[in-house]
Amino acid sequence: MYDVVGVGNALVDVLAHAEDEFITRHDLVKGSMTLVDTDRALELYKALGGAIEMSGGSAANTMCGVASLGGRAAYIGKVSNDDLGQVFGHDLRAVGVVFRPGSPDADMPTGRCIIVVTPDAERTMHTYLGVSSLLHTGDIDESVVAAGSVLYMEGYLYDRPEAKAAFRRAARIAHEHGRKVSLTLSDSFCVDRHRDDFRALVADEVDILFGNADEIRSLYEVESLDEAIVAVQGDCALAVITTGAAGCLIVTADTIQAVAAVPVTKVLDTTGAGDLFAAGFLFGYTKALDLAECAHLGAIAAAEVISHVGPRPLVELRTLLA
Amino acid sequence: MYDVVGVGNALVDVLAHAEDEFITRHDLVKGSMTLVDTDRALELYKALGGAIEMSGGSAANTMCGVASLGGRAAYIGKVSNDDLGQVFGHDLRAVGVVFRPGSPDADMPTGRCIIVVTPDAERTMHTYLGVSSLLHTGDIDESVVAAGSVLYMEGYLYDRPEAKAAFRRAARIAHEHGRKVSLTLSDSFCVDRHRDDFRALVADEVDILFGNADEIRSLYEVESLDEAIVAVQGDCALAVITTGAAGCLIVTADTIQAVAAVPVTKVLDTTGAGDLFAAGFLFGYTKALDLAECAHLGAIAAAEVISHVGPRPLVELRTLLA
Repeated sequence: MYDVVGVGNALVDVLAHAEDEFITRHDLVKGSMTLVDTDRALELYKALGGAIEMSGGSAANTMCGVASLGGRAAYIGKVSNDDLGQVFGHDLRAVGVVFRPGSPDADMPTGRCIIVVTPDAERTMHTYLGVSSLLHTGDIDESVVAAGSVLYMEGYLYDRPEAKAAFRRAARIAHEHGRKVSLTLSDSFCVDRHRDDFRALVADEVDILFGNADEIRSLYEVESLDEAIVAVQGDCALAVITTGAAGCLIVTADTIQAVAAVPVTKVLDTTGAGDLFAAGFLFGYTKALDLAECAHLGAIAAAEVISHVGPRPLVELRTLLA
Repeated sequence: MYDVVGVGNALVDVLAHAEDEFITRHDLVKGSMTLVDTDRALELYKALGGAIEMSGGSAANTMCGVASLGGRAAYIGKVSNDDLGQVFGHDLRAVGVVFRPGSPDADMPTGRCIIVVTPDAERTMHTYLGVSSLLHTGDIDESVVAAGSVLYMEGYLYDRPEAKAAFRRAARIAHEHGRKVSLTLSDSFCVDRHRDDFRALVADEVDILFGNADEIRSLYEVESLDEAIVAVQGDCALAVITTGAAGCLIVTADTIQAVAAVPVTKVLDTTGAGDLFAAGFLFGYTKALDLAECAHLGAIAAAEVISHVGPRPLVELRTLLA
């Protein structure tokens, strides 16, 4: 049995600090995630200063957070049999996450995400997906998905038709076994690219939807958050809308509840904030806590991860729970 | 022209935090550097929690320090054409160090150093050398060595007969071109294993010797630091003996001068302290500063690197000079 089973792009982060001037000189969109090809990835990497490598990947970060809180987590995502693939697998197993790396069926390297952290702690990401994006229905381990109380899928991966089919299959397996299905929208550009498919997936299969205000508004193509809330109430039993430093809104069919963020002395790197928020929320959810408590656990986990460089907890999150 | 040309084991550090209990459970010798084979490296890595990867290697760290101070540095060391080899090369070039990776003449992976950092900020290192230890005379680029004011070689590499021959060749080239030759003893266990060869190299070729008190005493097999100082005065024009938090002693044929360390608010990770001390000292030396000033620059660089996790500067060291 698992509390949460994650599915996502398996990536190693390549993280470097740079001044704002680097963002403008290289025409980057601050705070965004952009998909890049090998050439552009190499060009950016070459332009960056000394970097550090650490495992990342949105849903993988979330699973590490669940494990760090004391939950049982599994993760499905594709890596290659190269150094970075080994690093990725090690770092999941090291915190107790069960890893199903999928079949190594392509001669492509492990994916990586080049993250530029500016002095304001904002991160700008450029992702070379490598083998991670090739996830297909055959990589969805039925026994693992069936054994997870909640399935958690990241929108970043929802790009190629094969991955969309894999999401559908995973959701079907989960529901057949009486499990809940959750999805994070990940990025408003992802939502823009695949809005119709996202909307159908949300309406058909998603029990718990995560997203920030931009992503939810983009999903329903509406100007205001209020309109987006009405729309999502018709689609999902539960939506959790993060609102940055303000905290989040918990939206059910007939209630909207705001929960505050946990204050942080100094924000050093916002990478992983949403991932760890989802980890805390889902951990609480699988423990049948009330929704405001779930959101508070999410806020605690997010506060830890933005207080240091890197997208995964540096301390055992369970030690932060009162 | 280069200010300093370094020769050493090209390694990527795999760094993880652990409690003291990890050190005892795995029979590690705290604060030491132990060479391990692949199996032992994998066993330790598996036992460790989530890790981060960053370029390391003693002399390579030193060359990054020289560049960060504003000096011109080059580095000779062997990596493979794998992910970690690419990371290593990138991180040198990113700070302006010219990299001569040697010939990729063996089917072995890039070397790595597994570093366990305990809560007292001490680091315990286990090195799987991979291709790095295969450096031979053919890898010593004559034009690079000839163009460097000071040659800097690390004792860690001084192990296989081919590497010893490479050191001799590099020293000969340097002296033929009127350059200075420096050596760091690196580790008292290294000195123990190769004492006679080290002593001959020091007596024959070394103009500037770096080492801590243990290493220098081990080199001359004497009990007291005083005896070691007398011995080294007979061998080298200049020896710089680091004495930890106390600072260092500058030893010439007829003088001994103590220079204090630069205080640090909180020591987080001692990895790279000696490497960066050497960087500061050599940078000052190539600028013809007096020896006490050279040591003070070393102390500034060492203070920066022990104030954060990781073996290389996080800021441009030149900005720390008054």
